[in-house]
Amino acid sequence: MKILMTVAYDGTCYCGWQSQKNGVSVQEKLETALFSVYGEEVRVVGASRTDAGVHALGQSACFTLKNDYSLPVEKLPFAIRAKLPPDIVVAGACAVPDDFHPRFDAKEKTYAYSILNAPHPNPLLRFTAWHIYAALDLDAMKAAASHMVGSHDFACFCAAGSSAKTTVRTIYAINMLKAPNGLITVLVRGNAFLYNMARIIVGTLVCAGLGEIAPRDIAAIIESKDRKRAGKTAPPFGLTLLEVKYAEETASPLAGLQINRP
Amino acid sequence: MKILMTVAYDGTCYCGWQSQKNGVSVQEKLETALFSVYGEEVRVVGASRTDAGVHALGQSACFTLKNDYSLPVEKLPFAIRAKLPPDIVVAGACAVPDDFHPRFDAKEKTYAYSILNAPHPNPLLRFTAWHIYAALDLDAMKAAASHMVGSHDFACFCAAGSSAKTTVRTIYAINMLKAPNGLITVLVRGNAFLYNMARIIVGTLVCAGLGEIAPRDIAAIIESKDRKRAGKTAPPFGLTLLEVKYAEETASPLAGLQINRP
Repeated sequence: MKILMTVAYDGTCYCGWQSQKNGVSVQEKLETALFSVYGEEVRVVGASRTDAGVHALGQSACFTLKNDYSLPVEKLPFAIRAKLPPDIVVAGACAVPDDFHPRFDAKEKTYAYSILNAPHPNPLLRFTAWHIYAALDLDAMKAAASHMVGSHDFACFCAAGSSAKTTVRTIYAINMLKAPNGLITVLVRGNAFLYNMARIIVGTLVCAGLGEIAPRDIAAIIESKDRKRAGKTAPPFGLTLLEVKYAEETASPLAGLQINRP
Repeated sequence: MKILMTVAYDGTCYCGWQSQKNGVSVQEKLETALFSVYGEEVRVVGASRTDAGVHALGQSACFTLKNDYSLPVEKLPFAIRAKLPPDIVVAGACAVPDDFHPRFDAKEKTYAYSILNAPHPNPLLRFTAWHIYAALDLDAMKAAASHMVGSHDFACFCAAGSSAKTTVRTIYAINMLKAPNGLITVLVRGNAFLYNMARIIVGTLVCAGLGEIAPRDIAAIIESKDRKRAGKTAPPFGLTLLEVKYAEETASPLAGLQINRP
């Protein structure tokens, strides 16, 4: 049986989603916990291989069980909780077809990026928001974002080291909300993301907010396909993977539950 | 010269605000950092002696310098930042009269308490919100809160060990907001608070939200002055001291700055 989980995690203490030799990964912790629940070794495959320090509230991940178990799938989140460290939570689980792939079958992903635009840092947000002291022009950021929406060759927003066959992607929407305390949340929704794309987009929007890039230059920057013309990559700890969406006929692991949004 | 600071801190790693023998306090860290800035040993006095695990975004604290320094008072937050650990921030500073006392001169305090009412915990909120799985009836909580507002003898909301001469206090307002992700923020504003009063109020509101106490019984509970009739004390990590207010003629250390609200 193949099971799809919705997973939330605080990425602060991990070397990233994917298992690695020299660090502790979220994937590894889940595999250990699942073994503790089922007594069977499984390999967990995630929808997004988030970087070290990046968080998630709606990561999707699959694993396959060889045997049958009496534990109903929807109870897995409760059964596994005590086996996981407090910075990883399985928030939902459902059965999926054997040929389902959490990354290749994903239709869209939504990321949130938090920027604290205030004179002083907020110690309670030090692991989840990028503190920027200089005043950001939100209108300039929104104008810049409007040029990014749509289907483009986003090579300029792709970090080196990507193994993608094509750098064409579609951004469905970029929204920005500013709270009274100076916290800006940037929401980016796209069909798929290149390596560090969400963070480079945010870094570029911040450049626009600081007046270093004019919003109308974004189109030319995208046309140039030149990474060096875009902004610097925003730090990982401001990024949270909010949601991965699949075709409607795939059962939603969160059916009946509220999605934890920041 | 007497200086009033606005201080924010993540209380997770501290034994509380006040210096103690067997633990590291916020007060102690501030005194060490101030010595590093001025070269003079100072004693820091806070408006509220927050408990271990309790956070602050608007704690007020004073210290007195014997000598004069070229550093303008309003620059202290910037000068001290590198001397403080990342979980403590001085967000403002101003001069106050020598006879000013941060606790005795306080006119009102506002606390925020965060409850995550959702099926599963949110790992990013594990140090700042109390996770409650059972559905809370927000209307019942609001009804219960309405009976608490006003001037009362709040002995029923006072933990043992208090040294207060009188247990009469005035609650100006209790507000509750629920976010789509299940996060409930309870805001309590009063002239002054007894020992653990804010947390006992929240624990009592949660009892009302769970149907364990009827909102209309709150008046009788207050009348009884019996701590055992109120709810249990909510855990410390959900509580944040938002703001301490003084008489208008006292210069505001945050003049011109935005107050960091959660």
